[in-house]
Amino acid sequence: MAALKKLGILLSGRGSNFEAIADSIKAGRLQAEIAIVISNRADAPGLESARRRGLNAQLIPSKGRVREEHDAEVVTALKQAQVDLVCLAGYMRLLSPDFIRAFPSRIVNIHPSLLPAFPGMDAQKQALAYGVKVTGCTVHFVDEHLDHGPIILQKTVPVLDSDDEHTLSARILQQEHTAYSEAIGLVLSGEVEVQDRVVRKRTHAEGK
Amino acid sequence: MAALKKLGILLSGRGSNFEAIADSIKAGRLQAEIAIVISNRADAPGLESARRRGLNAQLIPSKGRVREEHDAEVVTALKQAQVDLVCLAGYMRLLSPDFIRAFPSRIVNIHPSLLPAFPGMDAQKQALAYGVKVTGCTVHFVDEHLDHGPIILQKTVPVLDSDDEHTLSARILQQEHTAYSEAIGLVLSGEVEVQDRVVRKRTHAEGK
Repeated sequence: MAALKKLGILLSGRGSNFEAIADSIKAGRLQAEIAIVISNRADAPGLESARRRGLNAQLIPSKGRVREEHDAEVVTALKQAQVDLVCLAGYMRLLSPDFIRAFPSRIVNIHPSLLPAFPGMDAQKQALAYGVKVTGCTVHFVDEHLDHGPIILQKTVPVLDSDDEHTLSARILQQEHTAYSEAIGLVLSGEVEVQDRVVRKRTHAEGK
Repeated sequence: MAALKKLGILLSGRGSNFEAIADSIKAGRLQAEIAIVISNRADAPGLESARRRGLNAQLIPSKGRVREEHDAEVVTALKQAQVDLVCLAGYMRLLSPDFIRAFPSRIVNIHPSLLPAFPGMDAQKQALAYGVKVTGCTVHFVDEHLDHGPIILQKTVPVLDSDDEHTLSARILQQEHTAYSEAIGLVLSGEVEVQDRVVRKRTHAEGK
């Protein structure tokens, strides 16, 4: 039996998606282990939650530091923990090109909209203001542009007439919690490949 | 019993969405009548189809004409037919501001993507190239910007690994055919209102 693949989680706040991943692993829905949880903020509740779960939880403060230096330190910690996949879980930092190159097609993020619609901050608020009837969440590989990399998985969520930002965000978050673990499992399985920014299941046609 | 609301249909080609609307009316799924079908192209198969169905079908050629003049003629024909709602069904012309003002919140269109993603031409091709996992169709009021007005209804369609532009377009078109009649029925019912570009069901709270 192959060793469990190792995840590195980066967060800046509550880390509810980190908790959903940890719960998926515990419940046996996701075959992986969390090798390290890194927060760039000392006051991130997700950091405390990681400690309570007995995980390797590290604070690498970003405040007042040059991005490249901070990123280099995070990359070193992730490499030391030998992570196979880096999962952003509410990590409020843009990654430097060096960081992205250190884990080619090995950094994933989740965003609370059906990208390419509503990238950036307050995606749920943007969706309500635009008046869409359907929104959702997107798990994607991270590239050098904001909320832009190849899409692994998307889940839809209806927008109701009665919705405000709070109710819509909560409904999307429910989908995020299952979507993220599902997408991570897909990537770790090695069964998907990226061609011209399109993520597809590998075809096993070649020469077998 | 109230008189049936009158639809005016504008098309430039096959008009498969026009045919779906006509079929919905015939089947009793949509309470309305088609008062006029206008094509800007003599060779539009939808024009012939309208004639075969015994509908008032008119050719108002746009080729070589100034947009405002052509639009004025179309508006006159629609007004003469006393239409309550103008439905674009593959009408390959941008409407002039005067046209839009002639039918305030009374012009609807359908677009083969989940707007605001992939406006403009070849929406299905755009979606495949971007690598989204979900797309769909959007029925919206027409405003002065391309594929931009308030959204009445959206339906989702999964994108499959095996899809090409043809198979994806066909799967979206199936949804378009039900979505358009459903949205038209909603608008004709008078039960929706537009506030700050958001389309909602009216609340009947006021003073009753």
